[in-house]
Amino acid sequence: MAYYAAPLLKLIEQFERLPGIGHKTAQRLAFFILNGTQEQADQFARAIVEAKKSMHCCKICQNLTDAEVCGICSNPSRDSSIICVVEDPRDVVAFERTRDYNGLYHVLHGVISPMDGIGPEQLKIKELLARIKNGGVKEIIMATNPDVEGEATAMYVSRLVKPLGVKVTRIAYGLPAGGELEYADEVTLLKALEGRSEI
Amino acid sequence: MAYYAAPLLKLIEQFERLPGIGHKTAQRLAFFILNGTQEQADQFARAIVEAKKSMHCCKICQNLTDAEVCGICSNPSRDSSIICVVEDPRDVVAFERTRDYNGLYHVLHGVISPMDGIGPEQLKIKELLARIKNGGVKEIIMATNPDVEGEATAMYVSRLVKPLGVKVTRIAYGLPAGGELEYADEVTLLKALEGRSEI
Repeated sequence: MAYYAAPLLKLIEQFERLPGIGHKTAQRLAFFILNGTQEQADQFARAIVEAKKSMHCCKICQNLTDAEVCGICSNPSRDSSIICVVEDPRDVVAFERTRDYNGLYHVLHGVISPMDGIGPEQLKIKELLARIKNGGVKEIIMATNPDVEGEATAMYVSRLVKPLGVKVTRIAYGLPAGGELEYADEVTLLKALEGRSEI
Repeated sequence: MAYYAAPLLKLIEQFERLPGIGHKTAQRLAFFILNGTQEQADQFARAIVEAKKSMHCCKICQNLTDAEVCGICSNPSRDSSIICVVEDPRDVVAFERTRDYNGLYHVLHGVISPMDGIGPEQLKIKELLARIKNGGVKEIIMATNPDVEGEATAMYVSRLVKPLGVKVTRIAYGLPAGGELEYADEVTLLKALEGRSEI
């Protein structure tokens, strides 16, 4: 396939490397770049290099930040006695959108998944234990995804944390808001029943 | 939405500018960049800048190239008496994939579309007329898309070219290979009937 000149081909290949981007879409994106101005292309390129260079893990919660300590960990008005443990930086954003949770976070950067060769030592678990050992933590909320890997990771972490004398909780299973009973699967429905509360 | 640090937010915004990329996908792509190595990010950024800087229109056929004259126009074994007129550089690639067409191309870089404010003067039509006036051209194949704008553009160009004493043809309408009669629309079917040939 030498239909395109080398620089264009290289750009298409770079777009193709991105997740969920096939060859046709990669072509379309590359042509979009070529149709833009040089300034726009430079800006895009700079954003990539800058983001990669300046973003790293917060030394406390392991969330992505461009500072040494992230905005949440360094915020004195947040309750540092509660830590919500999530898989991914995007999950932090999801919780922040609720505008209700006022504790801190801990990002594991993955879940235990033997199928993908990811064991506990590849996750930020020892950093979490170190935070707890530093004292002041009363509750750990395990907020990994409600799937097999998330569940297993929550169990694994809770077994390490409990001996340290800290309360460990798990976010509730149940029906999603706006969902329909009719379409709920059996496991969700069973968990919703088990987790019922008085009104 | 100040949930993400500035450099990450900037990268997400850049991905969101791309066609067909929504906010969620832009986030996913940005995180993919952050999960890669610095070298990979640099390579991506370089590909963008390089492609934009070095790709421009061939001075003969207006196709995208990194040379002054593209590989097709400068190939002496191609038949320079036939010019296939297309809307877009991607259409050239589509024809080249057939490995059968041996003439040259002319890329209009768009179609006449009053709704989008694109008139004939924004297309590379005068460059096509100049090529024909230079002599040696026997046939112009109008290969714009089989839609309203493509059809109108083909008609418009053919009216300018015919007085120059050059044969103008239009690619055939008909059923696509592997298609099913049952699902063909009336216009296509009618055109397929009209364009029938003896076997």
